[in-house]
Amino acid sequence: MTSDHEAAAVPAEQQAREAEITREVLDSFRDCTDPRLRQVMRSLVHHLHAFIRDVRLTEDEWSKGIEFLTRTGHITDDRRQEFILLSDVLGASMQTVAVNNQAHGDATEATVFGPFFVEHSPEIAAGEDIASGAAGEPCWVEGAVTDSTGKPVPAARVEVWQADGDGFYDTQYGDDRTAARAHLFTGADGGYRFWGLAPTPYPIPHDGPVGNLLEASGRSPLRASHLHFMVSAPGLRTLVTHIFVSGDELLPRDAVFGVKKSLIKEFQRQPEGTPTPDGRDLDGQVWSQVRFDIVLAPDRA
Amino acid sequence: MTSDHEAAAVPAEQQAREAEITREVLDSFRDCTDPRLRQVMRSLVHHLHAFIRDVRLTEDEWSKGIEFLTRTGHITDDRRQEFILLSDVLGASMQTVAVNNQAHGDATEATVFGPFFVEHSPEIAAGEDIASGAAGEPCWVEGAVTDSTGKPVPAARVEVWQADGDGFYDTQYGDDRTAARAHLFTGADGGYRFWGLAPTPYPIPHDGPVGNLLEASGRSPLRASHLHFMVSAPGLRTLVTHIFVSGDELLPRDAVFGVKKSLIKEFQRQPEGTPTPDGRDLDGQVWSQVRFDIVLAPDRA
Repeated sequence: MTSDHEAAAVPAEQQAREAEITREVLDSFRDCTDPRLRQVMRSLVHHLHAFIRDVRLTEDEWSKGIEFLTRTGHITDDRRQEFILLSDVLGASMQTVAVNNQAHGDATEATVFGPFFVEHSPEIAAGEDIASGAAGEPCWVEGAVTDSTGKPVPAARVEVWQADGDGFYDTQYGDDRTAARAHLFTGADGGYRFWGLAPTPYPIPHDGPVGNLLEASGRSPLRASHLHFMVSAPGLRTLVTHIFVSGDELLPRDAVFGVKKSLIKEFQRQPEGTPTPDGRDLDGQVWSQVRFDIVLAPDRA
Repeated sequence: MTSDHEAAAVPAEQQAREAEITREVLDSFRDCTDPRLRQVMRSLVHHLHAFIRDVRLTEDEWSKGIEFLTRTGHITDDRRQEFILLSDVLGASMQTVAVNNQAHGDATEATVFGPFFVEHSPEIAAGEDIASGAAGEPCWVEGAVTDSTGKPVPAARVEVWQADGDGFYDTQYGDDRTAARAHLFTGADGGYRFWGLAPTPYPIPHDGPVGNLLEASGRSPLRASHLHFMVSAPGLRTLVTHIFVSGDELLPRDAVFGVKKSLIKEFQRQPEGTPTPDGRDLDGQVWSQVRFDIVLAPDRA
């Protein structure tokens, strides 16, 4: 990616002047007494300067960057976090998730947390429904939680949350309803099961500077359909992830790069009237089912 | 600067996962119809991801970064631009200046523009005073403007602006006064001369997030003493620069990295009562003088 072609066109005296500025800035952190802050700031300066040099950033482009950050700051408030959106659409959030969830054998992969998690969700028993009135096609979700040696993890806490059939989370309803979110615990065999909703696609907020950037870049603000999980148990690494829907055309262009091949699952749609796994009477509605087995890495992996 | 040591500790499978995320994000700009935007965004993503990987950014540090940008956005308004300050203290402004003012023979070096320039400054004749009542020690400034072949440039526009003896620009007085700024034109021989003020150090605004960052990093918010110039003439590259004061202890730690060795000048202090170059009676005040010869590069250099 570094544009060696252009760098080669910069005369030696000019290159020396540019390198000297970077060296001075790196040196300016010499008296920083926090070694980690010093390391982070120096790396940030190193890469920021390399970006400016690689693209030969014009002064007009620099001004546009300042204006973009200013608009991003001004639209951000207690209810909207445009800088997180920016991090998401640049893949910086997902890269940070990757760095902090190191691959460990067949441990289930993590993905972005997103802005829609809420603490203190209602607890449900195995097989109950998380919808609480949220509209959408019923979906039976089941699986088992094991550690990376294959041993079942009983009493693991499984938090699930998702958008409704219209693509909205309860936090977007504008009232205080809790819907389409809950937590439950795995049984003695590590198993879990609940009724959720078939996931639907929805756009990230795209009426601000980040939406403008996506549009100018020819990118869609849509997220691939997904169902959120956060799974935790003592001594094991907490897993924050989603499952995605096999066949969803948005899989290759999820706006925030959350999709991992290992997290794409077969959601099997059942014809009207097909008996449900737990005998629940769905009044003849179409429903679907999916299986998601979860492997938790050790806490310090 | 890239932390090869740490990169080497990351297992191959993990490295592959991290590289795959970057590749996906780079690919997402494939439909961008503006080739320059595509280039800039891809380079930004490349370097941003490399930074996250190099420092193994923690999720807590990522959150602190989001909070820092949010505070920076919220303190920014029509009168205060904290993102420009941030760019300045990271040396990004100076690196951009360097990229856009390529070295050309002995052409005078450029430096940061700063936030204190004002359009439509008063015009003065050769040898007049720019102070307009601003307090400070008088300083006689003279020099000649030539092109890079050594030919004098007559009628070049020379804009000068500076802080007063207390370290404040007129735009910081809180009223509408214009002081310590003016423009004049070079004579037939390319020469210019005026009375300014001996430059003084002053801090950049440091009561916000950028000030907090400087403090945490063990850095000073002070700028080395300087006098601003912007010099323009048809067919020649407009020069935005400063001159700095030889012997100023802040030269090696200017908060925004504006200092260039070639821009450090001898400001010669004259004992009380020394006759002035133009015979002006300074009532026995101490005064100083400096010479600054300016070489303008061709417009397209």
